[in-house]
Amino acid sequence: MNQKFEVAIIGGGVIGCSIAYYLAKEKMNVALFEGNQIGSKSTSAAGGMLGAHSECDGDFEVFFPFARSSQYAYSQLKEELNHLSGFDIGYRKGGILKLAYNESDRNGLRSILSQPTVKWLDKEAVREREPDVSSNLLGAAYMKDDVNVMPIAVCQAFAKSAQILGASLFEFSPVLDIQKKDNSFLIQTATSHVEAKHVVVANGVWSTTFFKQLGLDHQLTPVKGECLSVIDEKATLKHTIFHDHYYIVPRNNGRLVIGATMIENDWNERVSLSGMDTLIAKAKTMLPTVADMKLDSFWAGLRPQTFDQKPFIGHHPEEEGILFATGHYRNGILLAPATGQMIRDLILKRQIKNEWVEAFKIDRRQPLLLRR
Amino acid sequence: MNQKFEVAIIGGGVIGCSIAYYLAKEKMNVALFEGNQIGSKSTSAAGGMLGAHSECDGDFEVFFPFARSSQYAYSQLKEELNHLSGFDIGYRKGGILKLAYNESDRNGLRSILSQPTVKWLDKEAVREREPDVSSNLLGAAYMKDDVNVMPIAVCQAFAKSAQILGASLFEFSPVLDIQKKDNSFLIQTATSHVEAKHVVVANGVWSTTFFKQLGLDHQLTPVKGECLSVIDEKATLKHTIFHDHYYIVPRNNGRLVIGATMIENDWNERVSLSGMDTLIAKAKTMLPTVADMKLDSFWAGLRPQTFDQKPFIGHHPEEEGILFATGHYRNGILLAPATGQMIRDLILKRQIKNEWVEAFKIDRRQPLLLRR
Amino acid sequence: MNQKFEVAIIGGGVIGCSIAYYLAKEKMNVALFEGNQIGSKSTSAAGGMLGAHSECDGDFEVFFPFARSSQYAYSQLKEELNHLSGFDIGYRKGGILKLAYNESDRNGLRSILSQPTVKWLDKEAVREREPDVSSNLLGAAYMKDDVNVMPIAVCQAFAKSAQILGASLFEFSPVLDIQKKDNSFLIQTATSHVEAKHVVVANGVWSTTFFKQLGLDHQLTPVKGECLSVIDEKATLKHTIFHDHYYIVPRNNGRLVIGATMIENDWNERVSLSGMDTLIAKAKTMLPTVADMKLDSFWAGLRPQTFDQKPFIGHHPEEEGILFATGHYRNGILLAPATGQMIRDLILKRQIKNEWVEAFKIDRRQPLLLRR
Amino acid sequence: MNQKFEVAIIGGGVIGCSIAYYLAKEKMNVALFEGNQIGSKSTSAAGGMLGAHSECDGDFEVFFPFARSSQYAYSQLKEELNHLSGFDIGYRKGGILKLAYNESDRNGLRSILSQPTVKWLDKEAVREREPDVSSNLLGAAYMKDDVNVMPIAVCQAFAKSAQILGASLFEFSPVLDIQKKDNSFLIQTATSHVEAKHVVVANGVWSTTFFKQLGLDHQLTPVKGECLSVIDEKATLKHTIFHDHYYIVPRNNGRLVIGATMIENDWNERVSLSGMDTLIAKAKTMLPTVADMKLDSFWAGLRPQTFDQKPFIGHHPEEEGILFATGHYRNGILLAPATGQMIRDLILKRQIKNEWVEAFKIDRRQPLLLRR
Ligand SMILES: Cc1cc2nc3c(=O)[nH]c(=O)nc-3n(C[C@H](O)[C@H](O)[C@H](O)COP(=O)(O)OP(=O)(O)OC[C@H]3O[C@@H](n4cnc5c(N)ncnc54)[C@H](O)[C@@H]3O)c2cc1C
Ligand SMILES: Cc1cc2nc3c(=O)[nH]c(=O)nc-3n(C[C@H](O)[C@H](O)[C@H](O)COP(=O)(O)OP(=O)(O)OC[C@H]3O[C@@H](n4cnc5c(N)ncnc54)[C@H](O)[C@@H]3O)c2cc1C
Ligand SMILES: Cc1cc2nc3c(=O)[nH]c(=O)nc-3n(C[C@H](O)[C@H](O)[C@H](O)COP(=O)(O)OP(=O)(O)OC[C@H]3O[C@@H](n4cnc5c(N)ncnc54)[C@H](O)[C@@H]3O)c2cc1C
Ligand SMILES: Cc1cc2nc3c(=O)[nH]c(=O)nc-3n(C[C@H](O)[C@H](O)[C@H](O)COP(=O)(O)OP(=O)(O)OC[C@H]3O[C@@H](n4cnc5c(N)ncnc54)[C@H](O)[C@@H]3O)c2cc1C
Repeated sequence: MNQKFEVAIIGGGVIGCSIAYYLAKEKMNVALFEGNQIGSKSTSAAGGMLGAHSECDGDFEVFFPFARSSQYAYSQLKEELNHLSGFDIGYRKGGILKLAYNESDRNGLRSILSQPTVKWLDKEAVREREPDVSSNLLGAAYMKDDVNVMPIAVCQAFAKSAQILGASLFEFSPVLDIQKKDNSFLIQTATSHVEAKHVVVANGVWSTTFFKQLGLDHQLTPVKGECLSVIDEKATLKHTIFHDHYYIVPRNNGRLVIGATMIENDWNERVSLSGMDTLIAKAKTMLPTVADMKLDSFWAGLRPQTFDQKPFIGHHPEEEGILFATGHYRNGILLAPATGQMIRDLILKRQIKNEWVEAFKIDRRQPLLLRR
Repeated sequence: MNQKFEVAIIGGGVIGCSIAYYLAKEKMNVALFEGNQIGSKSTSAAGGMLGAHSECDGDFEVFFPFARSSQYAYSQLKEELNHLSGFDIGYRKGGILKLAYNESDRNGLRSILSQPTVKWLDKEAVREREPDVSSNLLGAAYMKDDVNVMPIAVCQAFAKSAQILGASLFEFSPVLDIQKKDNSFLIQTATSHVEAKHVVVANGVWSTTFFKQLGLDHQLTPVKGECLSVIDEKATLKHTIFHDHYYIVPRNNGRLVIGATMIENDWNERVSLSGMDTLIAKAKTMLPTVADMKLDSFWAGLRPQTFDQKPFIGHHPEEEGILFATGHYRNGILLAPATGQMIRDLILKRQIKNEWVEAFKIDRRQPLLLRR
Repeated sequence: MNQKFEVAIIGGGVIGCSIAYYLAKEKMNVALFEGNQIGSKSTSAAGGMLGAHSECDGDFEVFFPFARSSQYAYSQLKEELNHLSGFDIGYRKGGILKLAYNESDRNGLRSILSQPTVKWLDKEAVREREPDVSSNLLGAAYMKDDVNVMPIAVCQAFAKSAQILGASLFEFSPVLDIQKKDNSFLIQTATSHVEAKHVVVANGVWSTTFFKQLGLDHQLTPVKGECLSVIDEKATLKHTIFHDHYYIVPRNNGRLVIGATMIENDWNERVSLSGMDTLIAKAKTMLPTVADMKLDSFWAGLRPQTFDQKPFIGHHPEEEGILFATGHYRNGILLAPATGQMIRDLILKRQIKNEWVEAFKIDRRQPLLLRR
Repeated sequence: MNQKFEVAIIGGGVIGCSIAYYLAKEKMNVALFEGNQIGSKSTSAAGGMLGAHSECDGDFEVFFPFARSSQYAYSQLKEELNHLSGFDIGYRKGGILKLAYNESDRNGLRSILSQPTVKWLDKEAVREREPDVSSNLLGAAYMKDDVNVMPIAVCQAFAKSAQILGASLFEFSPVLDIQKKDNSFLIQTATSHVEAKHVVVANGVWSTTFFKQLGLDHQLTPVKGECLSVIDEKATLKHTIFHDHYYIVPRNNGRLVIGATMIENDWNERVSLSGMDTLIAKAKTMLPTVADMKLDSFWAGLRPQTFDQKPFIGHHPEEEGILFATGHYRNGILLAPATGQMIRDLILKRQIKNEWVEAFKIDRRQPLLLRR
C-alpha cells in the first residue's frame, strides 16, 4: 500500500471516528489508522453521559457552549447515523440528578443551578422520581438535557458511517512515525506508508509521542477510571445519579453502570480490588438498594488529561498541515461531535467561534502555577 | 415463601414473559418461575426475525393472521416497553428478501407473492438494494413488514415491565411439580410452594414433563439450531436475506447473524464443527463477501416443535385452570405478543377468534399420517 | 433410546462423576445423566481445597478419617486420571495456614493442633513463609496435607476417564422421574427412558426433588458461596490462607481465588455487590497487598447442605436399589473420591467401615434441637 | 520513574520473558517493557508444539540442534518454573504423528525419518495408537520427543519467575523510542524513561520499528495464523497429528486445538469465516470424528517472519549494547529457552556455538533472490 489521502487521522477512538465522519461527509478523501480495534480503549470504558451541565464546573465561557452544541448535535446524529450505518447509538433520555447531601454540596451546585436548563429538586421531589435514592439527601440539581449514549456504539457508528461515505479505515495499524515530505506528510505504520496533506493526531492519551516527534513538549497524563456494571432487576433507575465525580448510569439493556475512580498516572488498564471497593461503597451511599444487585462486569480505561483539563483542538503552531484533537479527559464522548466539526472547519477554513479556537489551541499559555 | 397468586407461569422465555406482561397490565397477581435466567434458553438463540410472511408457508387461514397481529403489536410495544422498563428491544426495519436462485425457488414463493404486502424484485432490483448479494440470483420476494428485533432484549423488557406492573419473578427456580388442591393448584419448586388459581405451562421444549404430569400424552421435540455472528466491517447489509431456511440478519450493532441449522432431537446446546461448516457454506452462497468477514461469536438453541409445528395455546382439556403456551418452534419471537394476548383473553374469558382457538387447542387432532 | 444399565447416576457434578469412575473401573455398565454440562454447578464454583484438617471442626470420629482417606486417594488419582484422560487436575502442594489473630482464634484451633499432621507456627514463622500476610497475627496452624486441586478439572477428568472405561454420559439430560418397574427402575428424561438395576441420586442441592418423589422427607438447603479471583502479579502466595470460613487459595495459573460468602437459602447463582464487598474486606485483613491486585473474574455456587451438615451416602431405607450421594456442603471436592468408593462398595456389597455407614445413612436421626 | 538498569527488554511475549528469566537468574538488574499484557499477542495464539523434528525441514545444521537444545531445556524448566512461580506450564507428552497420505507425503518425511529419534509407523500402527485418525492413510512419522506445552502459561511462568528473581516488569508500557546517551541507552515509554546498558529488542512482529529507528533496514512480515478449539468429549487423541502445516493438538484440559492458517501480510488479529472454513475442512481430513465435536473457542495471532524464516538473535552490527531477539516465526515457543540462553551468553560474553551466532546474526546475507 502506498496511497495518497487528503487527511490521515491517527486514532480510532470516538474523537478520531467523529472527525473521520465529518470529513467524509464533505467528500474528503480520508484514512483513519487505529492501532488496535475501533473504540477499544478509553472510548469503550466511558459511562456515556453527555454532561454538558454536570461537567461544566463553572466554565460558562467556553466549555459550556461548546459542550451544549455537541450535546445538541447528538439529538440529530442518533437518526442520521442509524440511517446510514444501521447502528443504534443507545441514546437515552432521563438526564442527570446531581445529588446534594448537605448545604456545602448544594453550594457547589449554585453556579450550574443558575442555568435555565437546570432545576433544583428537594428531597421529596427527588424521591418521587427515584424512590430508591438515599434518604440522606437534601435535594438534587436536575439536568434534564444531560442524556446519555452507548459510547462504543457511537464510535462504531461514526466509523462505519464514515466508511460508507468513502473513508478508508485501517485497524491493527499503529502509526509509528510522521514525516514531512514536500507539501505533505508521510504516515508510517508497521507495514505501509501513506501520504496525506493533513494529519490529525487523535490517539487519546497516547498522543504525547506525536507531540514529541513533532517538536512539541506537551504531555498527556492518564487518569485511570474503573467501572462496574450491575443488573437492575427490581428497581428502575430512570435518571443518572451523580455525586462527587461518581455516578450510576442506567443503560437501555437493564444494566446500571457504576463509575468511576480517578487514578492519576496509572497506565495499567485492569481493575484493582481497591477500585472495586471504592465504587461499591460510593454506589451504596447514593443508591442503597444497589447492594443486593448482581454484578455483571467490570473494566477500566484511561482518560487523556491535559495540563488545564481542556482538550487540544487546533493546528500545530508551526505546521499548518498537522492538527491535534486530543486530551478530552472526562468528556470525550460528549465533545466528540463538536470536535469533529471543529477539525472539519479548521481544515476547510470555515469560520469557528474565536473563543473556542483560543481556548483549545495547542500553544495556549499554561497558567504559571500549574507548570511542572 | 408460601404465597397465593392468581396466575403462576412456568418458564421465563419470551413466551412466559409476554404472558406475564399482558396479565400484569390487567392488574392480575402473577408469579413467573424460571429455572435458570430470564431468556437464557431458546429465546436468546433466536435470530429475531418477525417472519409473518417468510414463515407462513401457505397457511393463510391461521398462521398468517395470527402472526400479522403479533407483528403489528411489536410496532407499538417498542415504545411501550421502552417507556416502562428503559429497555430498547432493537426493533429494526429493513424487511426480508427471500432469494430465488431459479424457477423452482420462485415457484416456492408463489403463494406468498400473492399477498399485497409482498413484492417480487428481479435480480437488478435486488442488487440495487443489496449489491453484495450473490449474482447467481433470479430475484427475490421482498417482505417489507418482516422486520426484526433483538430477542433477549424483548424478553427482558417484557419481564422487567411485568415486574414494574406488579408481577413477581423468580429466577433459578425450576418448577418440579403441579398439584391440584381444592380449587387451585400447588406449584412446587426446589425451595418453595405457592398456590395459584391458574397455571400457565410455558417452558418451551421442556414442557413435555408437565403434559405428562398432567395426564396428557403430548410430546415436544427439540430442533436444535446453531448460529454464528460476524462483524460486517465494510458491507452494509440492510435487509435480512433468506434462502431455504437459512438466513443472514443484520443487527443494530454492526453484527450479522447467520443461522440456523435444523437438527432434530438433539438436546445438546453446543455448536458442532459440522454445523459451523454448513452455516459458512450456506452464507457464502447468499452473500459471497461474508467469507472475509470476521467471526464474532457462536451459539445454539432448541426450537420447541409440536407434531404439526403449530404451538399449543389453550386450556388443559379437563382442567380449565391449567393452560399451555408452548411449542412455538421457529417463530416464538414473532408470536410472543399474540400468544400473551391470547392467554390473557382465555383467562379473562374475553372473546378470541375461533379459528385460533381451534388451531392451537391442546386436543386438536393429530393428522393420522404424522402420528408416530 | 431405551437402554438397560446396571447403574444410572443422576447428576454430573464431582460426586456423580467420581461414582461413575469408580463403578466403570469395576467394569459395571453405567449411565450418568447431567441436566446441564458436566461440572457446571457447585463443582465449578469451588475453591478446591482438600481441607481434611481445616474443615474437620473437631469431628475426629467420622469426618476426619473419611476425609483423610479421600485426600490420600487424590495423591494417586492425579497420575491415574492424567494417564487415562489426558487431564491435569491441578494438584498443588502448599497446604493451608489457618490464621489466628488472637487467643480466641488460637483456642479455636486447639483440637486440630493436637493432630500430628498439624503444626503451630508463630507470627515470625508464618511471615517467613508468607511475608505479605497481615502483621496483626498471633500465628497460624499449618496443615501441610491440605493441598488443593482444580475442581472443574477433577470433575471432567473423572467423567472422561469413566467414559474411556465404558460409561455412557448424557449431558443436557435432566432426569425428571424415577419409577419402579419390577426389579429395576425406569429413569425418565425429557427425551428418553432407560432402565437400571441401581439408581444413584447425586444431583447436589437439587436432590430434594428425588427424596420427595421417592417417598422421603429430606431437604437440602443451598448455602450460596460467592468468589472472586485476582491476578497475583508481584506477591507469590504459596499457601492457602484461611480465617473464619474465608480463604485465599493460590492456583497453578497465577490467580488467587478469594472465597467465599455463606448465604443460606439463596438459589440465585449470581454474585451480589454486597458479597463482593465482604470478600474484598475479608481478603484485605488477611493479605493487605491484595488491595492492589487486579480483578480477574467472579462467580457463585450453591453448597448442598443437610440438616447436620454431613452428606447422605447410602441406600434408600426401603428400596435397596436406590442410593443417595449428596449433601456434601463445603467439602464435596475433598470427599468425592471417598464417596465414589463408598457407593461402589455399597453396590458391590463390599465391606465398609461401620462408622461411615452409620454417620452418612439416609435415615439417621435428626438431633431434636435442629429440627424445624 | 527514572531508573537505571543493566538490561532493558522490549516485548513481553515468550521470547522477552524467557530472556528476562535467564538474565535475572544471573542476578542481572533487568527491566521488561510490555506494551499490552504479558503474553497477549502471538504467544497466546500458539499451539504449543515443541516441534524440533516436525518443523526442522531438513535443516540439520542449525535449526535442529538449536531446537533440540531448547526442547531439552523444557524438560527441566517445567519443574524449575513451577517451583519458583507456582505456574504449571502444561507440559504434555505424546509427541507428534506427521501423517502421510501417499508416497509423495512420505518422501517429504524422508530426511527427518533418518533421525534416530523418529520412527515410521504404517497405517495399522498409527491406527492402533489413534483409532479415529483418517483411514486414508499410508502411515506416519512418529516424533516422540516433540511434546507440547501451554504457551501462555510458559510465558507467564517465565515472567513471574523473573520477577521473583528481581526483574522489574512493566505492562501497558509500549516503548516508543531508544536513544543513545553516552555509554548507555535511554528507553522512552509514554510515561517514563529509563536508562540501560543493554537493550534487547524482542517485540515480535512489531520489531521492524526499532530496526528502523536504529538505522537498520530489516523487515518482519506477519504471517497470520487462525485457530479454533473443540471439546474432545468421546475420543481421546493422545498425540498431536500434523499434515501439511495444519495440526490437531490435544491439551491437558480436554480440548483439541486445531491450527493454523498461514496468511501473509495480514495484520488484522481477528478470525475470518474463510479461515474457519479451511480449518474445519483440514481437520476433518485428518480426524473425521472432529465433525461432531463441539466448538469451544477461536483466535488468531501474527507469526513474526524474517526474510529467511530464521530468527534474528544477536548484536546490532554497529552498536554492541543493542541486541535483537525476534523473528521466531512458527517456532517461538519451541525456541524461547534457547533464545533466552543465547542472549544471556551474548551479554555475559560466554561462549556460544559459532554456527548459531552466524546463522542468527543480524547482518547475515540475504540470498539475492529473496531480496525485495
Ligand atoms: C471510566 C471512564 C468514564 C468516562 N465517562 C465519560 C462520560 O460519561 N462521558 C464522556 O463524555 N466521557 C467520558 N469519559 C471520557 C472519554 O471516554 C474520553 O474522553 C474519550 O473516550 C477519549 O476519546 P479518544 O478517541 O481521544 O481516545 P481513545 O478512545 O482512547 O482512542 C484513542 C485511540 O487511539 C489508538 N491509538 C493509540 N496510539 C495509536 C497509534 N500510534 N496509531 C494508531 N492508533 C493509536 C488507541 O488504540 C485508541 O483506540 C470517560 C472515561 C473513562 C475512562
Ligand atoms: C437458532 C434459532 C433461531 C430462531 N430464530 C427465530 C426468529 O428469527 N424468529 C422467531 O420468531 N423465532 C425464532 N426462533 C424460535 C424462538 O426462539 C422460539 O420459538 C422461542 O424462543 C420459544 O420461546 P419459549 O419461551 O417457549 O422457550 P424458551 O426461550 O426456551 O424458554 C423456556 C424457559 O423455560 C425455562 N424452564 C424449563 N423448564 C422449566 C421448569 N421446570 N421450571 C421453570 N422454568 C423452566 C427454561 O429455562 C427457559 O428459560 C429461533 C430459534 C432458534 C433455536
Ligand atoms: C464457593 C464454594 C467454594 C467451595 N469450596 C470448596 C473447597 O474448597 N473444597 C471442597 O471440597 N468443596 C468446596 N465446595 C463444595 C463443593 O463445591 C460441593 O460440595 C460439591 O461441588 C458438590 O458436588 P455435587 O456433585 O454434589 O454437586 P454439583 O456440582 O452441584 O453437581 C450436581 C449436578 O447435578 C445436576 N442436576 C441437577 N438436577 C438434575 C437432574 N434432575 N437431572 C440430571 N442432573 C441434574 C446439576 O446440573 C449439577 O451439575 C465449595 C462450594 C462453593 C459454592
Ligand atoms: C496460530 C499460531 C500457532 C503457533 N504455534 C506454535 C507452536 O505450536 N510452537 C511454536 O514454537 N510456536 C508457534 N507459533 C509461533 C509463536 O507463537 C511465535 O513465534 C512466538 O510467540 C513469538 O514470540 P515473541 O515473544 O517474539 O512475540 P509476541 O508473543 O508477539 O510478543 C511480542 C510482544 O511485544 C509487545 N510489543 C510490541 N511492540 C512493543 C513496544 N513498542 N513496546 C513494548 N512492547 C511491545 C507485544 O504487545 C507482544 O506482547 C505459533 C504462532 C501462531 C500465530
